[in-house]
Amino acid sequence: MSLYDLSIPQFKKMLQGLERWLDMAVKFAETKQFDPNVLMAARLAPNQWALARQMTTAADTAKFTVARLTGKEAPRQPDTETTVEEVRARLRWTLTYLDGFTRDDFHGASERLIAPAPLQGKHILGADYFHQMQLPNFYFHVTTAYAILRHNGLELGKMDFLGALPAR
Amino acid sequence: MSLYDLSIPQFKKMLQGLERWLDMAVKFAETKQFDPNVLMAARLAPNQWALARQMTTAADTAKFTVARLTGKEAPRQPDTETTVEEVRARLRWTLTYLDGFTRDDFHGASERLIAPAPLQGKHILGADYFHQMQLPNFYFHVTTAYAILRHNGLELGKMDFLGALPAR
Repeated sequence: MSLYDLSIPQFKKMLQGLERWLDMAVKFAETKQFDPNVLMAARLAPNQWALARQMTTAADTAKFTVARLTGKEAPRQPDTETTVEEVRARLRWTLTYLDGFTRDDFHGASERLIAPAPLQGKHILGADYFHQMQLPNFYFHVTTAYAILRHNGLELGKMDFLGALPAR
Repeated sequence: MSLYDLSIPQFKKMLQGLERWLDMAVKFAETKQFDPNVLMAARLAPNQWALARQMTTAADTAKFTVARLTGKEAPRQPDTETTVEEVRARLRWTLTYLDGFTRDDFHGASERLIAPAPLQGKHILGADYFHQMQLPNFYFHVTTAYAILRHNGLELGKMDFLGALPAR
């Protein structure tokens, strides 16, 4: 399996899951009669990002991961989303961005030396960047989004997190 | 990279991280003068598992993943841990269990057909089981543990989550 197979389809499935959680959050807010954008500002600790930023950071992590692994320059985005519809638009933009990559783009990605900003000038091999840094980071933000929604009463379950599985 | 390389070292690093969070939680409780086992019972929603169970489930996910991928039978554990020291013992037991596997044990793991209990009799390929089900599950429980601790005031940061990275 190439890093294409391990990144693009899984990132897409999880980001599509986030969009379904937005739909569930909107319905939940309707039932309870509150503004769904209140949820987008919810957070678990005062110095941790709110739900909107957890979701856009999951999207950003996917974007930068595939860009760095393939030697492309990803567009920077200001992360100013605060509403359900703004976050939804960011998720959809990211899904379209991910669709622009092919398996061929990932040729040599595992051996590529990458210098992501948090490593402050140090380099890391593409395979380690993906498996030890970006994939854990991606699931971190998706799971934190899930935790914020659960904490606020939305009934999400594990299958909402995992999405469809290729079982038979 | 074989599924050995993608599972055992990463599971071990993250579980060792959980043990460090236990140390930080104990110190935090000392400073604030409360029983650290109160944290082990903390949860983000009344029908979501408490911290102790999030941590032991991360350990259990690692255990069952490597057992199923290698065709071995993993011992079942009752998940009765409620104290810091019981959870620590479970993490250490799991680290020792993971050390009992070799790269050779994972020969053919990607193509192995696996029937995990949540799939109710359906089968899934080893590679899909690992990348789409167990790895997301593992990070889910580690991140939820992190979220519970952050929600209760413990100052964890992203590098506490990721652990040491092979950067140079």
